Amino acid sequence: MLFSKRENILRNEVAIAVVIGGLNTSLGYVDRKGRCLARATIPTNAHQPAELFFERLYAAAKTLLDTICEKCDIVGIGLSAPNANYYTGTIDYPPNLSWEYVDVFAEINRFYHLPIAITNNANAVALGEKLFGIAQGMKNFIVITLGAGIGSGIVANGEVIYGEDGNAGELGHTIVDLHGRECGCGRRGCLETYASDIGICRTVQELMCDTNEPSDLRFVSSEDLTLRIIYEAALRGDRLALKAFEYTGNILGLKLADSVAHLSPEAVIFYGGSAMAEDLLFRPTKQSLEEHLFGVFKNKVKLMASGLSEETGAIIGAGALIWNDLQKERYMDKSHQHRKILSE
Amino acid sequence: MLFSKRENILRNEVAIAVVIGGLNTSLGYVDRKGRCLARATIPTNAHQPAELFFERLYAAAKTLLDTICEKCDIVGIGLSAPNANYYTGTIDYPPNLSWEYVDVFAEINRFYHLPIAITNNANAVALGEKLFGIAQGMKNFIVITLGAGIGSGIVANGEVIYGEDGNAGELGHTIVDLHGRECGCGRRGCLETYASDIGICRTVQELMCDTNEPSDLRFVSSEDLTLRIIYEAALRGDRLALKAFEYTGNILGLKLADSVAHLSPEAVIFYGGSAMAEDLLFRPTKQSLEEHLFGVFKNKVKLMASGLSEETGAIIGAGALIWNDLQKERYMDKSHQHRKILSE
Repeated sequence: MLFSKRENILRNEVAIAVVIGGLNTSLGYVDRKGRCLARATIPTNAHQPAELFFERLYAAAKTLLDTICEKCDIVGIGLSAPNANYYTGTIDYPPNLSWEYVDVFAEINRFYHLPIAITNNANAVALGEKLFGIAQGMKNFIVITLGAGIGSGIVANGEVIYGEDGNAGELGHTIVDLHGRECGCGRRGCLETYASDIGICRTVQELMCDTNEPSDLRFVSSEDLTLRIIYEAALRGDRLALKAFEYTGNILGLKLADSVAHLSPEAVIFYGGSAMAEDLLFRPTKQSLEEHLFGVFKNKVKLMASGLSEETGAIIGAGALIWNDLQKERYMDKSHQHRKILSE
Repeated sequence: MLFSKRENILRNEVAIAVVIGGLNTSLGYVDRKGRCLARATIPTNAHQPAELFFERLYAAAKTLLDTICEKCDIVGIGLSAPNANYYTGTIDYPPNLSWEYVDVFAEINRFYHLPIAITNNANAVALGEKLFGIAQGMKNFIVITLGAGIGSGIVANGEVIYGEDGNAGELGHTIVDLHGRECGCGRRGCLETYASDIGICRTVQELMCDTNEPSDLRFVSSEDLTLRIIYEAALRGDRLALKAFEYTGNILGLKLADSVAHLSPEAVIFYGGSAMAEDLLFRPTKQSLEEHLFGVFKNKVKLMASGLSEETGAIIGAGALIWNDLQKERYMDKSHQHRKILSE
């Protein structure tokens, strides 16, 4: 009886999940099974001071809570944002946001006195995969988020690797070619300049210049070119588009071989953006990875598409930040109680 | 009274530490403070069956134990060897050893019924640095062992990263140049072919071919050339030798920038071989690392020389394998006892 009552209480526990993006911010309520019960979007408006943003966020979260039928207990707030730091609870010089420095813990504490956990999007998605997605039960894996940029979240020994300063997992800024493409980070040849959505567009430009391959893509301006257009051309058999995916997969596989040499993960999981390109990108990436792997790692590492939906994956990841912390606490608690019972 | 008695018992606890090398095997007794109380060397003779080796090892360990004045309790056996796997307790196709597969746990269990822990040399040294060396108190660091090859041991969140299969931390086999130097592993352009002792010798050969730089090293045959000879030439101001260290440091720094992007360590610690080259290699490595680091990591990562002596470091690392496991167990035990007392 007590048990079912407890179950009943658990069912209504939710985490507020917030995903801050350059233009828009998504928020939602994520329950302990990783279901997003309700979600909404507000403009980020990062040209305004951050405190205004958190006021609007609080108002939106309150309104959204009313749309959920069941009565909910909020157990914490998980937030992902560019350059959000798990250790310090701050956002420092976020790219694409004009805030210089935001003390997220302090801002949220104005409205809630609840556990707060923050990190960048890729780490949050990694936790989402671990708790609710395709990495359930895995202890060692890497999530690569493909989109306008490339993010990555590393899980080793069952824990997200934040590193000494909270910034571990910047695989998008490992170097492919010292003299290669200019990167937004000020250096040259970062993986991101080749394997992000924009990187693939740049590759199409390069192939149009280097080859005489006829292609529909030659009729699209550089500004108008998108991954979706390249993807659709490839599906029609456009050889230049196909080559662009081959080229990207080669580079991605080569750099992932280095990542595997560091971490020996069970799987590399792709989330978002060109993960939609499925076999077009997966096949050459897998082939290149196997070709370039150090012998002992060959034919071991799974390449997988995310187990989270592209619509709600980031939200669920942000929620997972809180659920992961609570799981650890409850585990400690349980083992404490268990020991207490044993010693009584 | 009870406490001092306990202390007294602890003082005599030792781990047997074994370091299997291609030619020779070192063994020693390492106490809980990381002191090597006695050590010896036996030929590995890997052309003979592994069981003969373990019989000789047991005999040598027994003889060596008698040389220690105090009475000792052996708490476990820590062993490092090429391709030794922490998870499986086996050595699989070790390079430079003709054994194909050795079940180390089974072999040692013939003589001792004690905890056994095995791993490769670089991981053992990483634990040695963490428990007894320069990484005491660090939670995130990388050890690079420089020698005939390049090994690495990664510690993140305070734990050695073994990865899914026990083989994580193969930084020597990350790729510098796809079309570069032939590596013993069958691929081309691995870091090891540039930054190991032999790699630096190869660089001298390359510089002798590519430049007209006069150098004493031109009078040394390729077979006779060693890192020590290059080091001594560099100390005399030999420009070709100096260039070889610059070149090596550039490449090492570049690849370490990738490692930092993965792991954001507090420090990268060099052990053995060319770590002796100190400033000759450190300065260009540090410079190249800082030059190639992603912005957020700049001026944060320490490059350090090992805190373990080159003579006994590997032995102490092998011993640390056992002491680290026991520390974890004792910690669990302590917290158990503490809780028991609290709940009584």
